[in-house]
Amino acid sequence: MDRRSFLRTSALGGAAAASTTLAAPAYAQGNRTLTMVTSVPDGFAIFDDAAQLAIDYITAMTDGALSFNKMPAGSLVGAFEVFDAVSSGQADVYHSAEYYFLNQHPAFAFFTSVPFGMTAQEMANWYYRRGGQDLHDNLSSLFNLKPIMCGMTAMQPGGWYNIEITSAEDLQGLRFRMPGQGGQVLGRLGASVQNIPGGEIYQALASGQIDGAEWIGPYADERMGFQEVTNTYYAAGFHEPGSALALGFNLDVWNELSEQHKAIVNVAAQAAHAQNTALSLAENGAALARLQAGGVQVRQFPDDVWDAFGRASAEVREENMGDPLYAEIANSYFASMEESAGWYEIADGEYMRQRNRVNAAG
Amino acid sequence: MDRRSFLRTSALGGAAAASTTLAAPAYAQGNRTLTMVTSVPDGFAIFDDAAQLAIDYITAMTDGALSFNKMPAGSLVGAFEVFDAVSSGQADVYHSAEYYFLNQHPAFAFFTSVPFGMTAQEMANWYYRRGGQDLHDNLSSLFNLKPIMCGMTAMQPGGWYNIEITSAEDLQGLRFRMPGQGGQVLGRLGASVQNIPGGEIYQALASGQIDGAEWIGPYADERMGFQEVTNTYYAAGFHEPGSALALGFNLDVWNELSEQHKAIVNVAAQAAHAQNTALSLAENGAALARLQAGGVQVRQFPDDVWDAFGRASAEVREENMGDPLYAEIANSYFASMEESAGWYEIADGEYMRQRNRVNAAG
Repeated sequence: MDRRSFLRTSALGGAAAASTTLAAPAYAQGNRTLTMVTSVPDGFAIFDDAAQLAIDYITAMTDGALSFNKMPAGSLVGAFEVFDAVSSGQADVYHSAEYYFLNQHPAFAFFTSVPFGMTAQEMANWYYRRGGQDLHDNLSSLFNLKPIMCGMTAMQPGGWYNIEITSAEDLQGLRFRMPGQGGQVLGRLGASVQNIPGGEIYQALASGQIDGAEWIGPYADERMGFQEVTNTYYAAGFHEPGSALALGFNLDVWNELSEQHKAIVNVAAQAAHAQNTALSLAENGAALARLQAGGVQVRQFPDDVWDAFGRASAEVREENMGDPLYAEIANSYFASMEESAGWYEIADGEYMRQRNRVNAAG
Repeated sequence: MDRRSFLRTSALGGAAAASTTLAAPAYAQGNRTLTMVTSVPDGFAIFDDAAQLAIDYITAMTDGALSFNKMPAGSLVGAFEVFDAVSSGQADVYHSAEYYFLNQHPAFAFFTSVPFGMTAQEMANWYYRRGGQDLHDNLSSLFNLKPIMCGMTAMQPGGWYNIEITSAEDLQGLRFRMPGQGGQVLGRLGASVQNIPGGEIYQALASGQIDGAEWIGPYADERMGFQEVTNTYYAAGFHEPGSALALGFNLDVWNELSEQHKAIVNVAAQAAHAQNTALSLAENGAALARLQAGGVQVRQFPDDVWDAFGRASAEVREENMGDPLYAEIANSYFASMEESAGWYEIADGEYMRQRNRVNAAG
């Protein structure tokens, strides 16, 4: 009986107590396999790719001394139950999107993505260089968790709609799948917002339970088959400009790891995050071309819809600023975004404008 | 006497011969320290940060079983001699910018950056997802080297000038420091181009040996002190829109590594690359604000100068297309750039425009 099954079948509730009496000796004996619970089915594009690559890297770098038994959504616990399962010690680590856990604490939104927030690179700048990881550690430690960013969908499109959005009034009464603060924004604009796990979106769209949905981006959305149900695809979205995924270790399990294995897990997560970012951005272009060839209409929201998104996003953001930890994280996040966005605009922004202009003329 | 000092002091020229008779047993006995030669002084911002972080990650993840003796430019060999030193087996691995080695093969340019080429994220997309690593392996194997991308300066600014550039004519006769294909482009436009190692630029500027120089970006340039010598700084540049750095292992040394250590080196390089990208982009914004507060004037090149850069860049690019390997790499590089740039423009590009517009209005 390993430690986890012992915990699950015993009356011993405290993971901390278990770690001192059981896990350390088990680990010292040699190889260890951790139970990872995820929020998507195995093989889900981009989302599960990040988890699997981190596992593969860690297994290779420890020569199998540290490995994982990955249990997809619904096999041990449901998609949105992974947080409580790991916090309580029922599982060792989750891989998920932190904004599924806004009920646990609203500040988890910042560790996935928030409306009018950071793009993929801006998120890396904050997380690695401007205190994001430390703030994430502080927040998750309240729930006996050690988090590490691991996965990046990059810009999430506005999503799939069964109508054209010509003004903010068109959002009234729209039954739309969108989680996180983005969903709260759509709700303020009159939409009927639903938070449906990834594995159930296609059926909800196909059955008419919802009028539209956003998921991840052209590559992952194509694999979901949404183009079979609706053919209007809004490209840029306000709601998740660069969504991170994360590993969340039970803090007692994390503390049992050797310094060498902690280094391996941290570096593997950083590398898997970078690979996943490249996967998202390299594959989205190719997938979009296929979708368009198959008849999908690509659109952009008009300016006044963006204005409405902007107003409602500011309201949603302010709603939790009375919570000191939320405010601390929000202020750090937006200060970092503002600092790095200025240079990006006059460097990469100006360069890409000139490259497009010169190449179009040549 | 370790293997490297044996090689340096013996008449045994062939690294392959040495590896079969000496290194494998030495490695099997336990810890191993590789000699790394670099092209900059120790502690050079961004450039040396990438090398040091990769070393730190590898040392931590192997618990010291694999470590490095880093020898900065000029201590074992000169800044631009690291390629030949590692190729011949005099040193085990270099950390450098591949475009310093255009004399060895012009296609090395693509593994740093080329004029009107890829930004930081586009480079990662190509390298990790569209065959860039394989092409790099093929090219370097001709020189008995195994390369791994490790470091990213991101967009390099147009650089420091002692005059304002109001038209392409202003480049005539300008004595300017710029390596790689970018330097070849400036040369076609009439500039007198010089390739000076990073550690010697300040002195060349201060003494009047050159009229201007580009180095890396606000953060690294500020550390060099260029603002003490000239105060006109062009932000966006045509010449290196996303410059990668690289590790280059002697191929025999690489082949001696265990599969576990190869995995550790690869993943460490990926993570150090991502960290270095975030370092570049997070610190540049803060540094630019300091430079401007100190009186530096930030400018952009006018459109007709960009047009001239574009024409000359296309000429330089075409010059080597008769070489099949150069052409294969160039075609792969630009196809990947075109594929991913389209999605980026309608997703991240549109989002950032709308975010700036809405935030400016609010």
